[in-house]
Amino acid sequence: MRKLVFFYCWLFAGVIPTTALQADEGMWLYNALPKEHLKKQHGFEVMDDWSEHLMLSSVRFNSGGSASFISSNGLVLTNHHVAAETLYKLSSADQNIAADGYLAKGFEQELKAPDLELNQLVSIEDVTERVNSAVNAKDAEEAGRQRQAEMAKIEAESTEKTGLRSDVVTLYGGGRYHLYRYKKYTDVRLVWAPEAKTAFFGGDADNFEYPRYCLDVTIFRVYEDGKPAKIEHFLEVNPDGAKDGELVFISGNPGRTQRILIADALEYQRDNRMPRVLNLLRRKEILMQQYGLGGAEQKRRAQDNLFGIQNSRKAYTGMLAGLQVPGYIPQKREAEKELQAAVGAKPWKTIRKVLQERIAMQRRSGSLRGSIYGIAEDLVLLVMEDEKPSEERLREFRDSNRQSLEQSLFSPAPLYGDLERVELADELARFAEIRGGNDELVLKALDGKGPRDRAAELISGTSMFDVEERKIVSKMSLADLKKSKDPLIQLALTLNAEYRELREASERMSEQERQAYAKIADAKFKTEGESVYPDATFTLRLAFGVVKGYAEDGDFIASNTTMGGAFDHEIAHDKKGDWVLPESWHDAKDSIASSTPFNFVCTADIIGGNSGSPVVDREGRLVGIIFDGNIQSLTADFYHSEKQGRATSVHIAAVLEALGTVYKASDLKSQIGK
Amino acid sequence: MRKLVFFYCWLFAGVIPTTALQADEGMWLYNALPKEHLKKQHGFEVMDDWSEHLMLSSVRFNSGGSASFISSNGLVLTNHHVAAETLYKLSSADQNIAADGYLAKGFEQELKAPDLELNQLVSIEDVTERVNSAVNAKDAEEAGRQRQAEMAKIEAESTEKTGLRSDVVTLYGGGRYHLYRYKKYTDVRLVWAPEAKTAFFGGDADNFEYPRYCLDVTIFRVYEDGKPAKIEHFLEVNPDGAKDGELVFISGNPGRTQRILIADALEYQRDNRMPRVLNLLRRKEILMQQYGLGGAEQKRRAQDNLFGIQNSRKAYTGMLAGLQVPGYIPQKREAEKELQAAVGAKPWKTIRKVLQERIAMQRRSGSLRGSIYGIAEDLVLLVMEDEKPSEERLREFRDSNRQSLEQSLFSPAPLYGDLERVELADELARFAEIRGGNDELVLKALDGKGPRDRAAELISGTSMFDVEERKIVSKMSLADLKKSKDPLIQLALTLNAEYRELREASERMSEQERQAYAKIADAKFKTEGESVYPDATFTLRLAFGVVKGYAEDGDFIASNTTMGGAFDHEIAHDKKGDWVLPESWHDAKDSIASSTPFNFVCTADIIGGNSGSPVVDREGRLVGIIFDGNIQSLTADFYHSEKQGRATSVHIAAVLEALGTVYKASDLKSQIGK
Repeated sequence: MRKLVFFYCWLFAGVIPTTALQADEGMWLYNALPKEHLKKQHGFEVMDDWSEHLMLSSVRFNSGGSASFISSNGLVLTNHHVAAETLYKLSSADQNIAADGYLAKGFEQELKAPDLELNQLVSIEDVTERVNSAVNAKDAEEAGRQRQAEMAKIEAESTEKTGLRSDVVTLYGGGRYHLYRYKKYTDVRLVWAPEAKTAFFGGDADNFEYPRYCLDVTIFRVYEDGKPAKIEHFLEVNPDGAKDGELVFISGNPGRTQRILIADALEYQRDNRMPRVLNLLRRKEILMQQYGLGGAEQKRRAQDNLFGIQNSRKAYTGMLAGLQVPGYIPQKREAEKELQAAVGAKPWKTIRKVLQERIAMQRRSGSLRGSIYGIAEDLVLLVMEDEKPSEERLREFRDSNRQSLEQSLFSPAPLYGDLERVELADELARFAEIRGGNDELVLKALDGKGPRDRAAELISGTSMFDVEERKIVSKMSLADLKKSKDPLIQLALTLNAEYRELREASERMSEQERQAYAKIADAKFKTEGESVYPDATFTLRLAFGVVKGYAEDGDFIASNTTMGGAFDHEIAHDKKGDWVLPESWHDAKDSIASSTPFNFVCTADIIGGNSGSPVVDREGRLVGIIFDGNIQSLTADFYHSEKQGRATSVHIAAVLEALGTVYKASDLKSQIGK
Repeated sequence: MRKLVFFYCWLFAGVIPTTALQADEGMWLYNALPKEHLKKQHGFEVMDDWSEHLMLSSVRFNSGGSASFISSNGLVLTNHHVAAETLYKLSSADQNIAADGYLAKGFEQELKAPDLELNQLVSIEDVTERVNSAVNAKDAEEAGRQRQAEMAKIEAESTEKTGLRSDVVTLYGGGRYHLYRYKKYTDVRLVWAPEAKTAFFGGDADNFEYPRYCLDVTIFRVYEDGKPAKIEHFLEVNPDGAKDGELVFISGNPGRTQRILIADALEYQRDNRMPRVLNLLRRKEILMQQYGLGGAEQKRRAQDNLFGIQNSRKAYTGMLAGLQVPGYIPQKREAEKELQAAVGAKPWKTIRKVLQERIAMQRRSGSLRGSIYGIAEDLVLLVMEDEKPSEERLREFRDSNRQSLEQSLFSPAPLYGDLERVELADELARFAEIRGGNDELVLKALDGKGPRDRAAELISGTSMFDVEERKIVSKMSLADLKKSKDPLIQLALTLNAEYRELREASERMSEQERQAYAKIADAKFKTEGESVYPDATFTLRLAFGVVKGYAEDGDFIASNTTMGGAFDHEIAHDKKGDWVLPESWHDAKDSIASSTPFNFVCTADIIGGNSGSPVVDREGRLVGIIFDGNIQSLTADFYHSEKQGRATSVHIAAVLEALGTVYKASDLKSQIGK
């Protein structure tokens, strides 16, 4: 589900608020936990030291995903698929760690990730008043600028004062602004990853299905000053895990939900945006498949991308299917009438107008996807933005973000010329399709050649594959940059004006939506009181639920599977395709305690970004790790569904059994929880 | 390339004329062969008995493809991929003929195809004057109706008089109307098919590439009165084949070209239609892949569909890439100026107006794809149309076509409920995406359920899987049909009005385009004289060219490969994926004469539909069989490219060598050419 987050971040702008509550719904803010609800519903009393310990034990993967500290010497537990991008970057044609796994025998064998940033949330501060008091303009665009500037100022002050990463997070669509301070870990090393065959057992076919049998876990270790970091808050382990019917908590970073969306916006999603996104995802899926047909090494290179795309495509298909059920949106529209009576029609009018504008802008584009073009584009923006004072720059180019930006921009992670060429050719073709073949900017971008020839020329001509060259470019003046002979830099310069115009328009529209939704959210606040949590913002939230099976097509599906069941599942699929367990499992088969719980489901409210979240019991002890949701949970973007929707976890007992019996990693196992 | 035809037929309406000539360009009418050009260019004199024999030896697969008679006892040689649909229909979970091949040992083992119709063209008659004299209306729509009615009348008279299938073919966009009479063969039996592993060696990755190593052939036999048909005109074989530099001829049925298209129409293709078609193809490709992940049997069921879709997707990608080269369309527009001066701007205006209308109609749809819905739709139309006199009916429901229609409608070929359900669910979702989720017809079609649930309900409720039930429905009165409890029949009735409205509009637009292009074609006639051939119409044409290699990326690619090269190619791809030769080849490896020519290329002008066409030498002897074109030939829809574009054939020597050495089919081999 990591890649859901990735696509979210990349495809959308703007963050939107939410409301409503039933049973185990909700992705709760750590500074506004539903204490009364938990007491009433589950007889559980939230103690402050309990929740603070859990917050401090939780870890965010900045690349999109969640995790937890599980030892005093810096071990971090996450999903294999959250780690996949890093595993891929650590792999080569000779050593395919992403596929074959890895086990470090001792600290010295732990492999440094080229560009990971892990965040530990250490404090939350409400800065709503300060942000609001800085905004006095009537004009939405100007108001947006004022707000952004004040947020940047708060962040810069906080970073200077505390040395911590400081992000002002917009909640409830602007109803609240909270300052999140994070301790950053940038020296992150791979300790153990199992084989992809067990982490993603059943492949794309089993993805978003249940029952499952996946060891979707990977362990990293954070370092400070070249030594394993000393961690005060880490999770203890309950090796028995959680039983059927037991209450569990999930502490992680859900990426994005859109539960506040009005009926018109849902219709826009259903009839316009989602079909477009799905077309794009299918296009990229086929592209990566075709590239992968070139040979085993091409297949390896395409795998990380392909997995993320397939995952998103399947998720979006489920989301769209949910919206296409005829009754749902009209019911939502009906429910809105009361709110509209309270707030007045204006926010609805604003949102509808913005949606129309979004539709009208669909045949414009000022950017191309793909790693190498992204680098050129970022460098061009960086040089241009650096000519302004920090607080006037585009958000990601401000001083407060410079370290994170440089870590990604100057990452030594390998890029593959042939893969980048294939992607760039497709992006140039897509650019021509979006804007039309006669468009002036398209003709400039193609420079008289077809997309394939032009991409070949750009890739062979650019020096942006070389990190040192990027560093040189990043320090250029704009005047010098304009004289650059690098064709990719020149292309990014050519598209820059359109990129900026579209980004400005998009940010302005998001601001208009934000203000409109804030009014709606405020009215919901008044109606529904304390039972309101904000839409997900890829910040730390607490969810809760009960370990519980469900009925489907007349069958009852039990809440947990077993390790022995994995072998049965393999046989049921003729040990073919993605249903082949790795050799290590076959070798250890007789030693594995076959009744060990493997995966389990619970009713908690999660979404993409929650991948890797620790699942803990009432005592705050680790009992599992989230890695997926079933198909019925894919409506989570718009509503929580408890009847059949389930969050899927790896059981902690399976992690321990596999480490001991399959991977003979007794030393690593002995560190966990201590 | 068969499936190209399939998609053409299904996605487009209307047929459009053409012109221009250089070197080995042209898909020539048998009654207007380029005799002078052939004499001048290649020193070849076309004798009437030579061309008549070739015409009568040529066979059309009505399902989309070409073939030839190769023995006096009814053997028909075509491509494995042209036969694939039939091989698929003859396969079951127990016997996968489509994958594993088949060899009949004696007549009694020859397997009857469930619904094949083969056509042998026996005469061509110019009926232009008669058609034109029947049209006197000024109004385009009325003129179209008059023309259609007269064409139907000519066909009916001819069928009655001769007992032959009679089609009036519109050529040069209405500049000429020719009556084509065909002898039909409907008892067609499978004699031999090799394994898919050799027929499609290299899979989707090698498709449209060269060099190639594919035994893409299958042999059927036509029967009459339950006995092998006696065939007067069949091809003799030249076992040595054609040498490098030799002139060869190709007699087959190119499906569709669009070389007459004006620049505006090409822009419409580039910026609008092709991106849409590609989105659809990618969608269906992913859908079939997902379905195929369900298991080995699902994979088998999806294979035929998947192959066709991938083939089309790759072809369209190449075609679009050709149009996206910035210089091509402006050059065409420039060249049109002279014509416009001669004809006046009116035809261009008409065409532009129709293109705008087509764009405006893109969010309408009155039909769903998929076999089972297609049957219900056809039955509803049949019952409605049968209430009118034959000549007033929609074309395919006239008496003259009844036998062909019934052969397809009442085919005992297996349909799979799970596959149809998956397809129908996707089609309902797509219907909602096209028309929007609030559309009244969408709401009626979904009947309150999501696409998946609704499709499940329709599939489990319909009796259209039963051929006898179809026959009963086909004989109903419209009044009784309307009372049918079959939910699929009811759905087709619900969509019928919209289907008809869109079809009528589409036929009216096609007629307007036809008339406009006819004027343009006429002017080109006058300018370019005899050097004009009409755009392809899936009717028999003669193409010619020279066996010749070509240069690519600085390398020279020789005109032919060898059977031994197939084993080298297998090793070069680690004997993995689609690069695994079948066991039969490995068993026979030491006996195969490794220098036997396997595949070869020539410069002739072909396109989808030509698959299976015989390639003959100056003496009219069989030297090969067309099965593909290289990527550079994919522009053929719009222009013939001789620099690198090549038609790809299986060499006849490889067919004979494989039959003898690999498949031990000496009896079958001995019948060929005799």
